Amino acid sequence: MEKKMSLSLSEGKTSDVYFAKDIKDLSTGLSSYGDNVFWVFDTNSARLFSSLPEKRIVIDSGETNKNLKSLEKIIERALSFGSARDTRFLAFGGGVICDMTALASSLYMRGTRLTLVPTTLLCMVDATLGGKTAIDYLGAKNLVGTFYPAEDIVISIDTLRTLPDKEFKSGLGEVIKHAFLTEDPSLLSFLHENREKILKRDKETLNVMVEDSLLVKKKFIEADPRETKGIRSFLNLGHTFAHALESMAGYRISHGEAVAWGLLRAIEASYITNLCNKDLYDLAYAILKEYGYDVDYRVGRGDWIAYFEALKKDKKKSNGSVKFVLLESLGKPCLLPLEEKYIRAVTLESAKIRF
Amino acid sequence: MEKKMSLSLSEGKTSDVYFAKDIKDLSTGLSSYGDNVFWVFDTNSARLFSSLPEKRIVIDSGETNKNLKSLEKIIERALSFGSARDTRFLAFGGGVICDMTALASSLYMRGTRLTLVPTTLLCMVDATLGGKTAIDYLGAKNLVGTFYPAEDIVISIDTLRTLPDKEFKSGLGEVIKHAFLTEDPSLLSFLHENREKILKRDKETLNVMVEDSLLVKKKFIEADPRETKGIRSFLNLGHTFAHALESMAGYRISHGEAVAWGLLRAIEASYITNLCNKDLYDLAYAILKEYGYDVDYRVGRGDWIAYFEALKKDKKKSNGSVKFVLLESLGKPCLLPLEEKYIRAVTLESAKIRF
Repeated sequence: MEKKMSLSLSEGKTSDVYFAKDIKDLSTGLSSYGDNVFWVFDTNSARLFSSLPEKRIVIDSGETNKNLKSLEKIIERALSFGSARDTRFLAFGGGVICDMTALASSLYMRGTRLTLVPTTLLCMVDATLGGKTAIDYLGAKNLVGTFYPAEDIVISIDTLRTLPDKEFKSGLGEVIKHAFLTEDPSLLSFLHENREKILKRDKETLNVMVEDSLLVKKKFIEADPRETKGIRSFLNLGHTFAHALESMAGYRISHGEAVAWGLLRAIEASYITNLCNKDLYDLAYAILKEYGYDVDYRVGRGDWIAYFEALKKDKKKSNGSVKFVLLESLGKPCLLPLEEKYIRAVTLESAKIRF
Repeated sequence: MEKKMSLSLSEGKTSDVYFAKDIKDLSTGLSSYGDNVFWVFDTNSARLFSSLPEKRIVIDSGETNKNLKSLEKIIERALSFGSARDTRFLAFGGGVICDMTALASSLYMRGTRLTLVPTTLLCMVDATLGGKTAIDYLGAKNLVGTFYPAEDIVISIDTLRTLPDKEFKSGLGEVIKHAFLTEDPSLLSFLHENREKILKRDKETLNVMVEDSLLVKKKFIEADPRETKGIRSFLNLGHTFAHALESMAGYRISHGEAVAWGLLRAIEASYITNLCNKDLYDLAYAILKEYGYDVDYRVGRGDWIAYFEALKKDKKKSNGSVKFVLLESLGKPCLLPLEEKYIRAVTLESAKIRF
């Protein structure tokens, strides 16, 4: 395993990101932690191992299991193995497993050691970096959580081999979002030029893409580790539109697909409010269409009230009004409220603007 | 309300401690927070108000309610009021309410604003300062929790007027512990000289005692906010012995009484292992006896195995062995393992040493 980057966080803490060459390299690396490790898998990620470590729990796969019940199971199992603060909780799975294990790790005796091994593209580029932990609660996505950065994040592109296409595409949504959050256009060009290799999951291409995507995220997190300065929340570009769609659709749509759609809605809103120029919108439309996202989807009139209600529940509220991350230009995000007429214009089917 | 101290914590955060002159001053101070406040009471503390604020929840009093169910109720109620990250969670009660509300505040949307108003002596001198939040879980005290310091802590000695004697004495246990954790002997002298006034709950005397006790705690917390450097854990002087007693007794004994007993056990262990001299033990024995604690209690032979098992589950474990906070002299704590024979000698009835 090779250390590719190290995040400087508050209180002198760091999160180190390692890339493993292959499954064998990953295996060797993780076994160096020794015996005081408590492993958390889901039924999908558990299949990547021929024999599972003894101190483990396997949670049923799927976002519907990102709940209090699963969190309780993780904590109970950790206790049954006599885990203490110096026990390393090791999450081996996608965002559900990583978010929940990290939350359990932050809560168990007020904090244990923690390693995340993301096995989905979405989790690699999004969930692992920056310490956001969560479960869904009372129908609200990630309502309950903490900030608790992992000591180590270990990435092995090989774990993506068996990932379903829909899941892979979900991760690409966040990668494309990152490409719009840096002034450097090289990630965007890379995505445009290597589309075929990326979709074929060429290992070297994905290694570059994941690392570049993480470098964008890293900058925002280091500048604002606990999302108190308004900088880190820029990473939520597209997310207010996306979360409401996910919530309305009962999470049948994947997070990254929702983000891809929300990203375009945010850039469209930036354009129609004269914040950015049409070129930026066209660029976003083109790259998202190129990668096969449903760029023309709008919420039907019958669903729009539910959609708008969900949108108003967004966590990025202050003084009762929801703020949106919008884009002035490539890598220049800002946080602004949006009048309802603009929200309608970019999300509601019958209010659709044809450019 | 007067700001008496300000704790410097990591990431530029501070916890400010205010003292209110009387209930009216407290009321005026708290109402200055405005309307975006979610109040958490227990059935005892709710009685201190003639009319309760609308956005509130009242939890049944008692340590048995410091559980996941109550935590869930708090979060659900907060959501029902449309609370967001800028909502202030305001805990008005003893340690159970303050610990749980602070945990809920740290978890709700990954953290809201937080004010603690402790209404028991134990909570004033112990639970409010330093950001430890918790619930009991699976029979283990404070197994689940976070570090989440309150922005404001507001103390009003008037809230102690209706506190039962047993509860008041519980708080004094922690105050006496703090007196042994500072090289400055003035808090110890103050406690010795003002015993009658303290037990009569003379307001001015208690104001001085609580402030001095908090100043001792403050030093340890500022030096080690997240208990990672071994300094803050010195505040657990007596707690390993105490927690095991509480766990064995099913929490029928009060925390402060257990701490008073555990404090003496830790100092006795320090003495018989030649860490401190007999004078220190005699001093601790005298002051604790003076305040009416059961200094001669030992665990009976029939209970000792249960006691020892509970003790081995202590959170201050590393590499599988429990470490004890011991005392070299006044204000000079250290963290050491103890051989079983010494643990027996200071806790087991039939192994009791007569000095």
